[in-house]
Amino acid sequence: MLIVGERINTSRKNILPAVENRDANFIVDTAKSQYNAGADYIDVNAGTLLGKEPDALVWLVKTVQDAVDVPLTIDSPNPEAIKLALMAHKGKAMINSITAETERYSQILPLIKEYNTKIIALAMDDSGIPTTAEGRLTAARKLVDALTSEGIQLDEIYVDPLVYPIATGSEYGKAVIDTISTIKKEYPGIHTICGLSNISHGLPVRKLLNQAFLVMCITVGLDSAIIDPLDQRLMGLLYASEALIGADEFCTEYLVAAREGKFEGIV
Amino acid sequence: MLIVGERINTSRKNILPAVENRDANFIVDTAKSQYNAGADYIDVNAGTLLGKEPDALVWLVKTVQDAVDVPLTIDSPNPEAIKLALMAHKGKAMINSITAETERYSQILPLIKEYNTKIIALAMDDSGIPTTAEGRLTAARKLVDALTSEGIQLDEIYVDPLVYPIATGSEYGKAVIDTISTIKKEYPGIHTICGLSNISHGLPVRKLLNQAFLVMCITVGLDSAIIDPLDQRLMGLLYASEALIGADEFCTEYLVAAREGKFEGIV
Repeated sequence: MLIVGERINTSRKNILPAVENRDANFIVDTAKSQYNAGADYIDVNAGTLLGKEPDALVWLVKTVQDAVDVPLTIDSPNPEAIKLALMAHKGKAMINSITAETERYSQILPLIKEYNTKIIALAMDDSGIPTTAEGRLTAARKLVDALTSEGIQLDEIYVDPLVYPIATGSEYGKAVIDTISTIKKEYPGIHTICGLSNISHGLPVRKLLNQAFLVMCITVGLDSAIIDPLDQRLMGLLYASEALIGADEFCTEYLVAAREGKFEGIV
Repeated sequence: MLIVGERINTSRKNILPAVENRDANFIVDTAKSQYNAGADYIDVNAGTLLGKEPDALVWLVKTVQDAVDVPLTIDSPNPEAIKLALMAHKGKAMINSITAETERYSQILPLIKEYNTKIIALAMDDSGIPTTAEGRLTAARKLVDALTSEGIQLDEIYVDPLVYPIATGSEYGKAVIDTISTIKKEYPGIHTICGLSNISHGLPVRKLLNQAFLVMCITVGLDSAIIDPLDQRLMGLLYASEALIGADEFCTEYLVAAREGKFEGIV
């Protein structure tokens, strides 16, 4: 399971001032704690800063990578900011994200090629975010076929089915599950990734829904997730799911995590 | 989701003396608390009492049903004890369990017919408990086909794929998941049920594994579970999974459970 740590995002209220004030210690601590908790990639997002975003994003890339030897997920709506961040990045970055929208696609594709990155591919096109599994699959297939025809390997592509709150439609959870399951079957070797927490928007005790949804997605083939790796219970359920689905031979990773105290607070 | 409350079992250390001493208050409290927490059926099992089991089982049936208006799951290795318990039972009982073993099958089938019960059908035959999904499916198909040829409706049958600890084989979780998924597709209208906790035997922080496994099984079609309904987090994940899979329209049951305080201790 590839884990992308989601905490360094200026939409979080303690991250925003840290980025505005260029508080390197706070950002480095946030990166280190995520890395130590099991993050394989660290997402960096300064999207709420608008005009000041490109500078902030470059600063985040340098600040994190000067302190922690971890690749980053460059998360931005702004192709220019992504390009500057990629120029500053060491190692193999991941871009978050490309879509099948004509403009976005044409802006991001050259960056993937030039900087040889991994890419998160959102299942949407110029008609917007589809609500059904079939709509998502149509957008995802269009995007994946276009990327592979440009020589990008399936193993570098992380399809994100996009998550709508089930409070707005009881079928939206199942639509994501079916999309993940079908994409994994249709494109052997491709990855699937998901930012989960939108699923529970507007409902009480959101953690329960987010936890169950992660486990459900892993059951049908989710192999990467954008989550908070400091959420001990969510990580515990992730390790447990990997062991249960047979993706953790002899339960080795589960046992190591338990021995390292990663499940310590869980009763 | 049909929930069978598992607590009234003499293999539990506080239930054993309560049954031996015919402590009706303790048993009634245990039944009521499970019923109030959402149990649709209450399992009664006095199997550890051996020679004294039939009397104890009949006493349990009467004691619980005199106090709580709930049907019971008669859980015994002993066909004679099951028969006596069914004679004392009011309403539609569930027998736990029949198998495709020649002797067990011939002993339990007449009881299902005579007392018009629901039946838990274990996926095993005279060759023992299969370890693979294919072995389980072979046993389950043999059993289901035999039962339906006797006029028993699919809607009365609850297939239990039987759970082996993943500590003894990394593939055993997946085997159960694949069995549930296939049986539900092959026999529309049939039910699947599972006692989950054996999956985590021998591993640390078993709750994490049991919780994740329940969610995984629901993802592929589990519609009944033998669990402790007083385990608030497990029940919370169950409600969440039902909402996420689209089996709880408008998230009504999830919202009612939250409003009733069923998720209160969960942070």
